Amino acid sequence: MTPPRQRPARRADAERNIAAIVAAGLDLLVKDPDASTADIAKAAGVGRVTLYGHFPTREALLEAVLDHAVTLANIALDDSAYDELPAPEAISRLIVSSWELLDRNRRLLAAADRVLPTERIRHYHDEALARVERLILRGQDDGVFRTDLPPTWLVAHFYATLHSAAQEVDAGRLDQNDAARVLNTTLRAVFMAG
Amino acid sequence: MTPPRQRPARRADAERNIAAIVAAGLDLLVKDPDASTADIAKAAGVGRVTLYGHFPTREALLEAVLDHAVTLANIALDDSAYDELPAPEAISRLIVSSWELLDRNRRLLAAADRVLPTERIRHYHDEALARVERLILRGQDDGVFRTDLPPTWLVAHFYATLHSAAQEVDAGRLDQNDAARVLNTTLRAVFMAG
Repeated sequence: MTPPRQRPARRADAERNIAAIVAAGLDLLVKDPDASTADIAKAAGVGRVTLYGHFPTREALLEAVLDHAVTLANIALDDSAYDELPAPEAISRLIVSSWELLDRNRRLLAAADRVLPTERIRHYHDEALARVERLILRGQDDGVFRTDLPPTWLVAHFYATLHSAAQEVDAGRLDQNDAARVLNTTLRAVFMAG
Repeated sequence: MTPPRQRPARRADAERNIAAIVAAGLDLLVKDPDASTADIAKAAGVGRVTLYGHFPTREALLEAVLDHAVTLANIALDDSAYDELPAPEAISRLIVSSWELLDRNRRLLAAADRVLPTERIRHYHDEALARVERLILRGQDDGVFRTDLPPTWLVAHFYATLHSAAQEVDAGRLDQNDAARVLNTTLRAVFMAG
């Protein structure tokens, strides 16, 4: 029988391995969406058996890496300016910051898109989208954002437009250096009251 | 040795089976994105071995069904009015017609989204998007559509916005009966010169 005092040590090992796998996964997948599970295990300094023990499928691994990337993005977006600036300035600032984070994670999102349904990927963005919704509701209350479109649709449109820009840059159809301007122009055209 | 004269008959059988499988696949998948390969084989009146002979993976079957659905949609959209009406009226008409077709195929798209990358699904819409691009270029030339956004981006935005509406309706976040109005309002806000 395993002595009980070994368990915390084994759990700590497992947690360390999971953290190393997820960090290595993020590191490799933001550069190459085709990075293999074997490459990720090697970069994490764990065996493939250990990796598969924690993440039996590529979907499971990608969900964990996506969750980690989004957690880091949410920390970067945690700025009281979004709640304090007038809504039009706040939305432009949020568009540009969100795009920078999305662009950095563009290849990871391409990897996730190959194995996860769109709705599953969107689920990881719920916290970020709650901030967008708060800002939209404030802009509508202040009479500066249009009110003839449902706030939930404007939130969906913010998300879909940013993610489609990432795909357009990836496909070589949108100039990466023009993306922030294009997104700001597009979304302000939709959000601002006429 | 197979007598040569049997070959055309075997080829005709194969073509008939493929057509039946693809038609049955469209029929079932527009109702239920989880429709199984076995259900589709049964509805097509072929054995599962025959189905797997033509479509070894669910991806392959979904690509064929998607291709078929898009071909039918392109026939429905083949209307000279899009080239003859003034660009603002033409785009509104194209938004509403495209939405009707997309909404009808909404569950099939959800099924495709689970196994095919976004870029692969978009590829099947190239012909439909060529019509959108022609209309956008004409509207920009006529000075009625904005010219500070690249036409390729406006095409991508048309596509991404319609497809995100399908996902929003599917997720219960957008009222299906309000979708055509929401899409028309959103896209005209982006397309029309200020």
